[in-house]
Amino acid sequence: MKKLNIGLIGFGTIGSGVVKLVQKNKKLIFEKTGIKLELKKIADIDIKTDRGVKVDKKILTTDANEIFQDSEIDIVIELVGGTTIAKDFVITALNSGKHVVTANKALLSRYGKQIFKTAERNKKYIQFEASVGGGIPIIKVIKESLAANKIEQIYGIMNGTTNYILTRMEEDKIDFKEALKQAQELGFAEADPTLDISGGDAAHKLQILASIGFNKYIEDSKIYYEGIENIDLTDIMYVSDLGYKIKLLAIAKIENKEIECRVHPTIIPDRHLLSSINDEFNAIYVKGDAMGPQLFYGKGAGSLPTASAVVSDILDIAKKLMDNNQNYTEKFYNENPNLKIKNFKDISSRYYFRFHTVDKPGVLAKIASILGKFNISLTSVIQKETGQKVVPIVMLSHKAYENDVQKALKEIKKLNIVKNLKIIRIEDLS
Amino acid sequence: MKKLNIGLIGFGTIGSGVVKLVQKNKKLIFEKTGIKLELKKIADIDIKTDRGVKVDKKILTTDANEIFQDSEIDIVIELVGGTTIAKDFVITALNSGKHVVTANKALLSRYGKQIFKTAERNKKYIQFEASVGGGIPIIKVIKESLAANKIEQIYGIMNGTTNYILTRMEEDKIDFKEALKQAQELGFAEADPTLDISGGDAAHKLQILASIGFNKYIEDSKIYYEGIENIDLTDIMYVSDLGYKIKLLAIAKIENKEIECRVHPTIIPDRHLLSSINDEFNAIYVKGDAMGPQLFYGKGAGSLPTASAVVSDILDIAKKLMDNNQNYTEKFYNENPNLKIKNFKDISSRYYFRFHTVDKPGVLAKIASILGKFNISLTSVIQKETGQKVVPIVMLSHKAYENDVQKALKEIKKLNIVKNLKIIRIEDLS
Repeated sequence: MKKLNIGLIGFGTIGSGVVKLVQKNKKLIFEKTGIKLELKKIADIDIKTDRGVKVDKKILTTDANEIFQDSEIDIVIELVGGTTIAKDFVITALNSGKHVVTANKALLSRYGKQIFKTAERNKKYIQFEASVGGGIPIIKVIKESLAANKIEQIYGIMNGTTNYILTRMEEDKIDFKEALKQAQELGFAEADPTLDISGGDAAHKLQILASIGFNKYIEDSKIYYEGIENIDLTDIMYVSDLGYKIKLLAIAKIENKEIECRVHPTIIPDRHLLSSINDEFNAIYVKGDAMGPQLFYGKGAGSLPTASAVVSDILDIAKKLMDNNQNYTEKFYNENPNLKIKNFKDISSRYYFRFHTVDKPGVLAKIASILGKFNISLTSVIQKETGQKVVPIVMLSHKAYENDVQKALKEIKKLNIVKNLKIIRIEDLS
Repeated sequence: MKKLNIGLIGFGTIGSGVVKLVQKNKKLIFEKTGIKLELKKIADIDIKTDRGVKVDKKILTTDANEIFQDSEIDIVIELVGGTTIAKDFVITALNSGKHVVTANKALLSRYGKQIFKTAERNKKYIQFEASVGGGIPIIKVIKESLAANKIEQIYGIMNGTTNYILTRMEEDKIDFKEALKQAQELGFAEADPTLDISGGDAAHKLQILASIGFNKYIEDSKIYYEGIENIDLTDIMYVSDLGYKIKLLAIAKIENKEIECRVHPTIIPDRHLLSSINDEFNAIYVKGDAMGPQLFYGKGAGSLPTASAVVSDILDIAKKLMDNNQNYTEKFYNENPNLKIKNFKDISSRYYFRFHTVDKPGVLAKIASILGKFNISLTSVIQKETGQKVVPIVMLSHKAYENDVQKALKEIKKLNIVKNLKIIRIEDLS
């Protein structure tokens, strides 16, 4: 039997979920694991608002230092979020001799190396299952269960807000703005949705997963990301006719010791399982050299699902402590100098182009000729009769280089015959 | 750094996969985990056949005792299969002071309690990730990552052979026999496919998962199972029209401290993710009180996917040894007397009935009246004009008790107007 004292910093949505879960399943958790969890202190700037959960007022404080200075507290849970004060809390907790559990992807993605080194220097554990995929145990799975594999690919729908919006656009045939509004009303998008919509949140998560999967620390600045704010219902309907869907996909691959990591709206075949991941759900598709493809699906956010991952981290640390574990060698920041990170402009991909052009003879030929000049060859071209003066042309290409595509688009723009121009990258997942 | 010596018993499909994987990824595994795996001995009755993998002949033996008696061997991997000699090997290995990794679901399902007690008495680890879901790390996930949850439901497509056959029947519009033949030709079904086809293999796996998930040891004799050998293409097409699919589903639920475990062909909504799991793939859908629904998907069989799980077990044990772990309290046979196992006849379910009756007035009324007498009320009835003397009637019911359904069918049979009679249970997964 092991008793563990917990100090919680951040009594918001996830924090109150953790309190609820520990209270509700305390006995069950003890029966399953022999571990007794004790919530000893909760710090938040607001300790007055009712969180729908009963706690002894004596354990509430507005001063996080009370947690760091409490010698009986074994683990600090950081659920403040952001990269400013949360960073101080995590570093101070580790330096105060506490193990740390956090769900803070932004913090780890930006300052992971410093934080992991601080944990190592203090011989303390830091766990962060809830930082990617909410309740889905993807970090531990990749780190431990799939450890015998060379991980070759990670494809993730890792942001619930954008997946909800894209699903609603497609199913309800509404445009981006309306779907965003709906998401905000239902609590699937924040008042300021920028971090989610822009792909930035998914990029944070990809940084964490890819660094673990490929066993090489990837700087967050090396990850290209692009959001869904420019996806039109038209695009969704065009690709639907062709047997595809559009998802905000986080992509990490390794080939010939070169890693590529990127997040952008991606066209994928509608027969692939990832196409069936709808609404606010998340899924991560991982391919390894021995296991082949696997997919992990669940709720990527929300109070209790995220709390489920936070508590599993606490139990992991408890087990290690129970085992008198003195092995602090878990490294999350391997340099692995023989693996290189590919520049985004050097990636190759298939592309979907949508041009709105003036309806004059020779326009299509001019565009196709510029594409050809940059080694972009087409697999299909769709131009429907519209009777309008500006006509849309949709083209799908074979694999081409990002750099060539950007150069071609620059030349096409100079023609002054294109009103609107859009590219979406295609991944032919099998 | 930790060096681990392995003795392998059983050099068949999975055994040679383990050897291949350890050889191929030895360096990578060491970089990731700091663990050096050394294959010290391989025992098999046949050490002559070429397994497509290079091994030093000196490590091959036909005598498993050489492994048990080798004091340098830390872990024994049992990949012999079956419940006779494999049982002796596992028990002897544990009694000889070796940790054990096995993929043997039949053995664990039948003799689990004895084996786990032997491991505990000897203070040795026994791990068995590969026994359920092949390469999918479902056992560790349920045991560790989802530990904070009260597990409420487990639904699994856990047998690749039957899933392959059902997929082929549906997509190629062929009957059971032809699909089975195809599966055998492609190596997805064995020459004697009984254990897979009958649902027995899936029942073994469900016994293991449910015992861990509900934290109560479930005797294998308590699990009802039924195979797919009587599923006709007609049934698949009838339910397809209604928006459903047929899968061999392993079902475990807990409600009001009562557990039900059963394996049978099951009609599920075609919009549910489990309906998209095709061919030889496996998937396990788990619902917990905090995390909500999750799904884990991958290859449920095959040489390298299964080897991926076996090696992850080895690495888990190595890590525990590295940590000087003296905690041997992992119990896989909790009695949990406050949880009861429901008798199969007491379950309730929705039902699909297919009757072939003589085309006479009043037949439908007679059947419906008997069903009504046993509290079976219908949601839909389909009777198409066929011009034949024997006509099929398909009925779908509301929830009814299995016991009542069996009694009703008995009375209906007595009418002597029904030529063919089939029931398939429905699960309205959401």
